Amino acid sequence: MGAIDGEGFIKRIDQLKTQIWLDGELVKEPISQHKAFKGVLKTKASLYDLQWQPDLVDEMTFESPATKERIGISFLQPRMKEDLHRRRKMIEQWARVSCGLLGRSPDYLNTVITSFACSTDYLKDKENCFPDHIHSLYTRARENDLSFTHTFITPQVNRSRAYFETSDEPIAAKIVGKTTDGLIIKGARLLATQGGLTDEVLVFSSPTLYCEPEESFAFSIPSDTPGLKFICRESFVGGDSHFNYPLSSRFEEIDSVVVFDNVLVPWECVFFHSDTQVASEFFGASAFHPFTVHQVVTRQIVKTEFMLGVAELLVQTINVGEYLHIQEKLAEIIMSLETMKALLAQSELDAQLDSSGFMRPSLTPLQVASNIFPRISPHFSEIIQLIGASGMVTLPSERDFQSAIAPDLAHYLQAAYRPAEERVKIFRLAWDLTMSAFGTRQTQYERYFFGDPVRSASHLYRSYAKDTGMQMIEKLIGFPNQK
Amino acid sequence: MGAIDGEGFIKRIDQLKTQIWLDGELVKEPISQHKAFKGVLKTKASLYDLQWQPDLVDEMTFESPATKERIGISFLQPRMKEDLHRRRKMIEQWARVSCGLLGRSPDYLNTVITSFACSTDYLKDKENCFPDHIHSLYTRARENDLSFTHTFITPQVNRSRAYFETSDEPIAAKIVGKTTDGLIIKGARLLATQGGLTDEVLVFSSPTLYCEPEESFAFSIPSDTPGLKFICRESFVGGDSHFNYPLSSRFEEIDSVVVFDNVLVPWECVFFHSDTQVASEFFGASAFHPFTVHQVVTRQIVKTEFMLGVAELLVQTINVGEYLHIQEKLAEIIMSLETMKALLAQSELDAQLDSSGFMRPSLTPLQVASNIFPRISPHFSEIIQLIGASGMVTLPSERDFQSAIAPDLAHYLQAAYRPAEERVKIFRLAWDLTMSAFGTRQTQYERYFFGDPVRSASHLYRSYAKDTGMQMIEKLIGFPNQK
Amino acid sequence: MGAIDGEGFIKRIDQLKTQIWLDGELVKEPISQHKAFKGVLKTKASLYDLQWQPDLVDEMTFESPATKERIGISFLQPRMKEDLHRRRKMIEQWARVSCGLLGRSPDYLNTVITSFACSTDYLKDKENCFPDHIHSLYTRARENDLSFTHTFITPQVNRSRAYFETSDEPIAAKIVGKTTDGLIIKGARLLATQGGLTDEVLVFSSPTLYCEPEESFAFSIPSDTPGLKFICRESFVGGDSHFNYPLSSRFEEIDSVVVFDNVLVPWECVFFHSDTQVASEFFGASAFHPFTVHQVVTRQIVKTEFMLGVAELLVQTINVGEYLHIQEKLAEIIMSLETMKALLAQSELDAQLDSSGFMRPSLTPLQVASNIFPRISPHFSEIIQLIGASGMVTLPSERDFQSAIAPDLAHYLQAAYRPAEERVKIFRLAWDLTMSAFGTRQTQYERYFFGDPVRSASHLYRSYAKDTGMQMIEKLIGFPNQK
Amino acid sequence: MGAIDGEGFIKRIDQLKTQIWLDGELVKEPISQHKAFKGVLKTKASLYDLQWQPDLVDEMTFESPATKERIGISFLQPRMKEDLHRRRKMIEQWARVSCGLLGRSPDYLNTVITSFACSTDYLKDKENCFPDHIHSLYTRARENDLSFTHTFITPQVNRSRAYFETSDEPIAAKIVGKTTDGLIIKGARLLATQGGLTDEVLVFSSPTLYCEPEESFAFSIPSDTPGLKFICRESFVGGDSHFNYPLSSRFEEIDSVVVFDNVLVPWECVFFHSDTQVASEFFGASAFHPFTVHQVVTRQIVKTEFMLGVAELLVQTINVGEYLHIQEKLAEIIMSLETMKALLAQSELDAQLDSSGFMRPSLTPLQVASNIFPRISPHFSEIIQLIGASGMVTLPSERDFQSAIAPDLAHYLQAAYRPAEERVKIFRLAWDLTMSAFGTRQTQYERYFFGDPVRSASHLYRSYAKDTGMQMIEKLIGFPNQK
Repeated sequence: MGAIDGEGFIKRIDQLKTQIWLDGELVKEPISQHKAFKGVLKTKASLYDLQWQPDLVDEMTFESPATKERIGISFLQPRMKEDLHRRRKMIEQWARVSCGLLGRSPDYLNTVITSFACSTDYLKDKENCFPDHIHSLYTRARENDLSFTHTFITPQVNRSRAYFETSDEPIAAKIVGKTTDGLIIKGARLLATQGGLTDEVLVFSSPTLYCEPEESFAFSIPSDTPGLKFICRESFVGGDSHFNYPLSSRFEEIDSVVVFDNVLVPWECVFFHSDTQVASEFFGASAFHPFTVHQVVTRQIVKTEFMLGVAELLVQTINVGEYLHIQEKLAEIIMSLETMKALLAQSELDAQLDSSGFMRPSLTPLQVASNIFPRISPHFSEIIQLIGASGMVTLPSERDFQSAIAPDLAHYLQAAYRPAEERVKIFRLAWDLTMSAFGTRQTQYERYFFGDPVRSASHLYRSYAKDTGMQMIEKLIGFPNQK
Repeated sequence: MGAIDGEGFIKRIDQLKTQIWLDGELVKEPISQHKAFKGVLKTKASLYDLQWQPDLVDEMTFESPATKERIGISFLQPRMKEDLHRRRKMIEQWARVSCGLLGRSPDYLNTVITSFACSTDYLKDKENCFPDHIHSLYTRARENDLSFTHTFITPQVNRSRAYFETSDEPIAAKIVGKTTDGLIIKGARLLATQGGLTDEVLVFSSPTLYCEPEESFAFSIPSDTPGLKFICRESFVGGDSHFNYPLSSRFEEIDSVVVFDNVLVPWECVFFHSDTQVASEFFGASAFHPFTVHQVVTRQIVKTEFMLGVAELLVQTINVGEYLHIQEKLAEIIMSLETMKALLAQSELDAQLDSSGFMRPSLTPLQVASNIFPRISPHFSEIIQLIGASGMVTLPSERDFQSAIAPDLAHYLQAAYRPAEERVKIFRLAWDLTMSAFGTRQTQYERYFFGDPVRSASHLYRSYAKDTGMQMIEKLIGFPNQK
Repeated sequence: MGAIDGEGFIKRIDQLKTQIWLDGELVKEPISQHKAFKGVLKTKASLYDLQWQPDLVDEMTFESPATKERIGISFLQPRMKEDLHRRRKMIEQWARVSCGLLGRSPDYLNTVITSFACSTDYLKDKENCFPDHIHSLYTRARENDLSFTHTFITPQVNRSRAYFETSDEPIAAKIVGKTTDGLIIKGARLLATQGGLTDEVLVFSSPTLYCEPEESFAFSIPSDTPGLKFICRESFVGGDSHFNYPLSSRFEEIDSVVVFDNVLVPWECVFFHSDTQVASEFFGASAFHPFTVHQVVTRQIVKTEFMLGVAELLVQTINVGEYLHIQEKLAEIIMSLETMKALLAQSELDAQLDSSGFMRPSLTPLQVASNIFPRISPHFSEIIQLIGASGMVTLPSERDFQSAIAPDLAHYLQAAYRPAEERVKIFRLAWDLTMSAFGTRQTQYERYFFGDPVRSASHLYRSYAKDTGMQMIEKLIGFPNQK
Repeated sequence: MGAIDGEGFIKRIDQLKTQIWLDGELVKEPISQHKAFKGVLKTKASLYDLQWQPDLVDEMTFESPATKERIGISFLQPRMKEDLHRRRKMIEQWARVSCGLLGRSPDYLNTVITSFACSTDYLKDKENCFPDHIHSLYTRARENDLSFTHTFITPQVNRSRAYFETSDEPIAAKIVGKTTDGLIIKGARLLATQGGLTDEVLVFSSPTLYCEPEESFAFSIPSDTPGLKFICRESFVGGDSHFNYPLSSRFEEIDSVVVFDNVLVPWECVFFHSDTQVASEFFGASAFHPFTVHQVVTRQIVKTEFMLGVAELLVQTINVGEYLHIQEKLAEIIMSLETMKALLAQSELDAQLDSSGFMRPSLTPLQVASNIFPRISPHFSEIIQLIGASGMVTLPSERDFQSAIAPDLAHYLQAAYRPAEERVKIFRLAWDLTMSAFGTRQTQYERYFFGDPVRSASHLYRSYAKDTGMQMIEKLIGFPNQK
């Protein structure tokens, strides 16, 4: 069948009998019509439609090697630098639709699945490892344009170094049984973004030092697998009005706790299990990091362009572009944007074929980008708030502009070169981006996208080659690095 | 009558026929029952009740010199250091009720009115100045425990240095006529917090360099004066549930644009008008800054204590107190808290009698505090978010805990030493404080409480005596400061 | 004999046969004439002279309770708040002479000795503890105006958590024997500032968790005790010219490694030994921290005033006071200065009598100040460099101004309102303060004055009472802090 | 003759009769033997020798199109991307010799001269412009491997916005006459680095808004032109010992004020004069920025590698690599290093042919790099100081290690895995890099390399295209950027 369109996507999602809980209720209606989900699903549908837009179809899709159907480029297994370039251009197209605000646009997990499919050599001939199952899933996903979410964080019970779970009942999801049909999983995993809104959910253990065999697994199952529950956080959709909530009405992806209530995971869905070494090594050995960070950084660049645009629009609206301290703030965003772009370009420039013949973007610049963005992007929000000043809390609504006081608003809220209504739309956009519950969740989401920033910096330091400077020092003062 | 209680307050406010617009509708119902206002009004009522709580009545009130009734201490005109101490203790009591989150608790504007009443000597015998009207208002306010808001910012049309309003129709509120009855005012002023929720509204021009005579005035009028409209921003009350919205359900003060539609301001309400020199000098010459910043800093200290408490509670809840980088973050809040406390203490220690015989807290330490807090307090929010990490977006609701999935939540969301429900309440508190629309508005509010921070630092630099160091340098290298 | 004067001090120091090594040579000449030491010794002499300056003698000295001689106020054991005030005023007088740049002005260690003398109750009746020896030393020091340095850091061999010294030969100074005459000490201690330039050296173990008995001791011995060597770092005196090196020519205190070559410490010099609990508890239990930090913060305030003066003088010299970003930088120093002053005042305001009847400044504000200053003061240097810009490297010398090119300099290096020679003196002052080897050592010195800032913040967090906020939260959401 | 070697360079420089003033004296001896200059000249000689090192000659030189001699690649006019690559590799080779610390290694000004020679089309047929003189100079420089410094800053008399020089006698160098032989120049320019140590000095006006005709010029003259004086700042060579002063003994470039005492600039040396429009446009229109920033960023990357090496060596020496806060600091340098590398790569990737057929690196990434480095590089110094802690002031000298106390030092200053002598060499290196007068001048030099950072950020903001984000916003909320 190949790449789907929006209608096909909505239809398929609505047909699933996924168990989604929100605010104490099991979602009954078709999820595409639920007020908490309809906005983001419509946006996702528009992404799928873009695949078939005549002027873009070549940029968005490629010919399936199996069926000759057009399929989404995020499923393309890159074999040359040009493939990385194609992947990036396609990812940008989708990211522009959501101004980079959709962290779980389908290309993200398509890329994850693709990275697994490029890395099955590592699993070959290892016990409890099923590289073929990965290939089957990949092919099925690619040919049917399946959508995914994933979940891998353990519940935040106790973050002390010395903590090990000792509860009788599993808290973090574990293998509690094995049958001829498959694994039995019980427990929970945290924060599946768009949990319940996708065809399948990919589940794996986050690589940690001390992983138990029963916590070591990776599999993908349909969202409506019996026993699987998605418990959503409060929805941050402000309302239906695009005027009032230009972002949350379109891009709010819910987050959910995923509960496994003795879920049977059929063997054909299992990638590996019960092997702690594989669980801790697979992600590092595979193309997972280079491929997915390449996708993420591409999206984050689009988001940064968008935030720069919002900042600049505020500057123009209240006419403060002449102030040096305002210019300095905008220049900061520009420097970050160009930095991210250069790091991404470098990762493609230095890309190399891996031992399986796939072209991996260079990891170091991506790793640097993934350390930089979580640190700087919250500051973009702050800059926008600092420029907007009191305007960020002068927020009348769409209905105000349709009421008897509309003339007052039109007169008193006019901007330097804008009518009041445009001015309010601009400030509501800035507010929804940085100060609404939707906006602050975006900030937090990027801050933790790649995990704990402290650990991430530690990893960068430990993995980085520091030779060049050492050689200069050795020449200068005559003795080497002892390592 | 003296100090009122909560019931009296609510009754009086509900009787006013104030014109409040919210989301395109004129508020019709008693405002104490309106979903956007009932929380904050109930909180304010509880403040007034505290005045009559038997164990606190002496701390909260003093005997009216006129009527011997008990009246609120925020109306006390300080004549000795002990009076400053009494004022501070009373302000703290009220601030603790709202965890420092109520920027416009009644003591704030009571203090402003009191500062005016202590500074009428400046206006004596000046043309178009009516010191007696200030005294009348002060006495009426004190004896009837009137509540106020104020408004003084001009609409944010164009913030360029070169901008002067040239519209035919006033945008910033101006005197457009004078009759035997009073001044006629037309135009708008920005951001009356709790606009419409108080007995009266105090209106004055912000001191600027180039003020026109028709923009130079100060007066106080009842909120339901004909022609006066309060146009509210969107309400940030998340809902009625104290579980879900522990803060916005109680402390959300609305902000509003105040529109003057040819409002007649009776002469007896006018403090001064049409004199640009008075308008630009009065606030600097009066006790306005020392008295009100003393109130504000007292409240901000309580808020900082609260934010430290929230941060520490998160630390305990997920048990991360052992990490040096977490300790560093908490230590930052502690340093700020102790700094603010010490500056406040210094302002009382160095307080001096002014020429009218009133005891003014020393302005320099308060000025420093008012430069420091807007810079550091947004960082407290960031620290709380950094500690909370993924927990800040794992936010099930009160109804979730009353539903069929409650057992799942109880098990999977338990914390180190807390049941899940407590843990979720704690994280929802942290979220409502720093990430809800209510919370981010708090951040922005403190950032701009004292106006543009860049200007504020400029003012501090220009007004500060830099002699001591200069003298050391002169002794050392032999020539003086040229100024 | 009582307080000495400069001449008496120099004579006494020159008579000692202290073993000082500098740049590979044992110092032979009278140290007061050595080019590396003469500047700082002359400055110290001027401090002692100040004690006898007629208009200051009452502010600088008090009557010895034993002999009725005038003795230095830094030896005053405070019994009321007024005593703290007197101590502070005296410390300020001395600090102003060195612009706060002399970290080891005599009052610093006088205060340490005095704090020990106020805290002997803790040692009473404990084994291996000699409170009387402390009293004798204190009395002798006070009555003879002895000067001291101290040394307590262990050599920086290996700062890993897991490191314990295993060398056969002691590296960190240890007790290697006990005789009827006293303790035998062998090993080294780090960074005695002014090591060798004082009458005595106070030696004690820094309080650590895992202290061995042989590393547990405190004593004071004359600088010329046999076997004691002071090995100086390179001298940072730039030269004799006050024009060229206005600061290092006067205030460069040398730092030295102190080597104990089987030094015999007579019993009457020993305060305690071989008791790890005493060694780790005494400093926390004693008046050491409140008294000495009170002295240090007083000096650091004077230094901040000086640095603000230098910054302002640069601003005036090149006439950049109109720029907002320059004003912002100066305002930062002002905020820090006022913060330090307020914290110091708070420590006196909240001072309390300890169980031995001595008035201790409140520790918390001092602890906060001692966390703040190391973080902010390097930034003052940076601000000065940022204001000075290219002027910081346009540094002709005194001899240039006496040579044939003097007219060129006079014309081309003139400043807005200053002749070139003054301008160059001002920039050389700024350079010597922040960019010379003397200046950068000052920065580093303050950064580590109170030890590792990371540990210091950790200690502040752990020791701070966080109740107030917790109580508000408990009222609000209904359950208490679990601790 | 082509590329020279070190001996040839020294000989040529020593033959010039340049007028250099240092510490009140006219330098008389051959400058290559003067204690303030011999180190840097020896280093420069070693750079020239590298051109003829058999294994590097192809990397360092190319064949002169005119004479077929080998000439230095920094004179190569790039016509394809490969040429940029060759230039960069050659620049790196030289930068590695000085660990990136030689801001005025010959390639810097060779690149400037080359950029002028690539940009003469702009000057063609303009009055008072002599493109041919540029070509002659370029050819002469290239074929004889001439070395240059330049000078363009006006004296820092008064940096107020409102200041215009009104002195009768010129302060900033000006044209005071024109004769048949050439221009007569009188006045001064600031901070020629290596002023007096090069064959020629390039002089031009810095592009400013309000330039007078008599301040509008560009020319190059021999350093020993009559009337030309170089007045040096104090030398920061600590001494001859490479042990004590590993950096200043080798890399200290002096800075000097350049005085023009009615200097005659022969017409054939003049590039343009008396045309304010040309003076303010030429630098922006020419290849000056893309070529020279490409050189500078290449060098700064090498310097960053070196600083990372020094930081890491300290970490290893005192064994603190396990601490998260140390790892974080190193990771910061790594992120900056990779950022600079990526921006440089991007500038080559996006390079384009200009209208004269020369390949210009893309300016935007270079402009971003030149905004980033001055902001972050001072922080590298701070990081090194924070890691080194007390070790940064425990600095015995080479002579100490040759004296009777050498055994003490060997024992007490040993490091985790290093003998004491190595440890001290490492810390002295770190000190010379960040805390000696040499080191702090390095910090200041980089901070202001590209001029005032505030202006630089302003320029970046104003020149940057902000369209991409604007287009997303327009799609989203429906109206365009007004510009």
